Amino acid sequence: MKSPQNSPSALLELIDALKCLPGVGPRSAQRMAYHLLQRDQTGARRLAFSLNLALDTLVRCSLCNNYSEHEVCSLCRDDERDRSKLCVVEMPADLLMMEQARCHQGLYYVLQGRLSPLDGIGPKDIALEQLLKRAQDGVVEEVILATNYTAEGEATAYYIAEMLKRQQIGVTRIARGLPVGGELEHVDSGTLAQAVYERKPV
Amino acid sequence: MKSPQNSPSALLELIDALKCLPGVGPRSAQRMAYHLLQRDQTGARRLAFSLNLALDTLVRCSLCNNYSEHEVCSLCRDDERDRSKLCVVEMPADLLMMEQARCHQGLYYVLQGRLSPLDGIGPKDIALEQLLKRAQDGVVEEVILATNYTAEGEATAYYIAEMLKRQQIGVTRIARGLPVGGELEHVDSGTLAQAVYERKPV
Repeated sequence: MKSPQNSPSALLELIDALKCLPGVGPRSAQRMAYHLLQRDQTGARRLAFSLNLALDTLVRCSLCNNYSEHEVCSLCRDDERDRSKLCVVEMPADLLMMEQARCHQGLYYVLQGRLSPLDGIGPKDIALEQLLKRAQDGVVEEVILATNYTAEGEATAYYIAEMLKRQQIGVTRIARGLPVGGELEHVDSGTLAQAVYERKPV
Repeated sequence: MKSPQNSPSALLELIDALKCLPGVGPRSAQRMAYHLLQRDQTGARRLAFSLNLALDTLVRCSLCNNYSEHEVCSLCRDDERDRSKLCVVEMPADLLMMEQARCHQGLYYVLQGRLSPLDGIGPKDIALEQLLKRAQDGVVEEVILATNYTAEGEATAYYIAEMLKRQQIGVTRIARGLPVGGELEHVDSGTLAQAVYERKPV
């Protein structure tokens, strides 16, 4: 939707700025701008404040590469975590899922991305060198690869495994198979075939 | 998705603040926050600036009630517009559509809402008194009601028409019927029935 010249420039500027949000096009941006101005000026002011606060205070944790307000994040500083196990995930959201599942008592390393040659993202564009250094701290005994089971996640896991094995660091990959509670009738055939292929002795 | 306690508070605060945007829930807010921090810090800073700028500079035009950076907006100040015709629309977006259609050379009045008893929006919650005063400036000869053809838009038009007719101000309503290029086969039956009911002599 084109806006006529007589729209105030601060409004046009706000609509344009909202388009930086993922999944927000011109129409949504316009709807959001009017919503904020008409119904939620408090929310708008708070959003502006929070954006600046996050940009000003968040840094990458020097150990796990996740967002943190300190040089080393609170999770990496937690004395109760098992420092011999390092779980590698693609994104901070994956770390949150792991924590919710309460299945890992060790530490994490967040790649903040994945290898994706088609998008021009190579080994130098994600923090792999820093991971190699991190895994060689003399305390880490096992690196658990928990990247996604997508093509990119698989390639990333393979690349990291090769990199770490060259340095005699133990590497494991989270299992693939039927979901818990999954029924053969309802699972996709690719997952089922892989579950049969990776069957284990009982 | 719950966030564990060890997420930095500035990040949690940003995710929470993003939820003030219409149609944005916890998951989208999280995705937006990570996107801004990882890929578009410039965009995030600009968004914060634009929000504050819009909140600080935009006021309602004293003539048309639309957003403006001046007490009277540029459209209302335009000498080439026909000041005898006043078109009433619900929202600023409707005014933009009218301008794009280039079908109205007069001025506008933006209600910034519609009557909606179910949502508790009565005559006092939209700027109807100000409209009545505006229409009685001695120059306006015709008020063109261009509210939506929804239940609320219709009720709003009816209420405004009654209010203005009591003051002997000429009121018209934009036509309802088949869309331009519309085929009987593809139009909804409500629209078709209304088009037959409102048929005109040729």
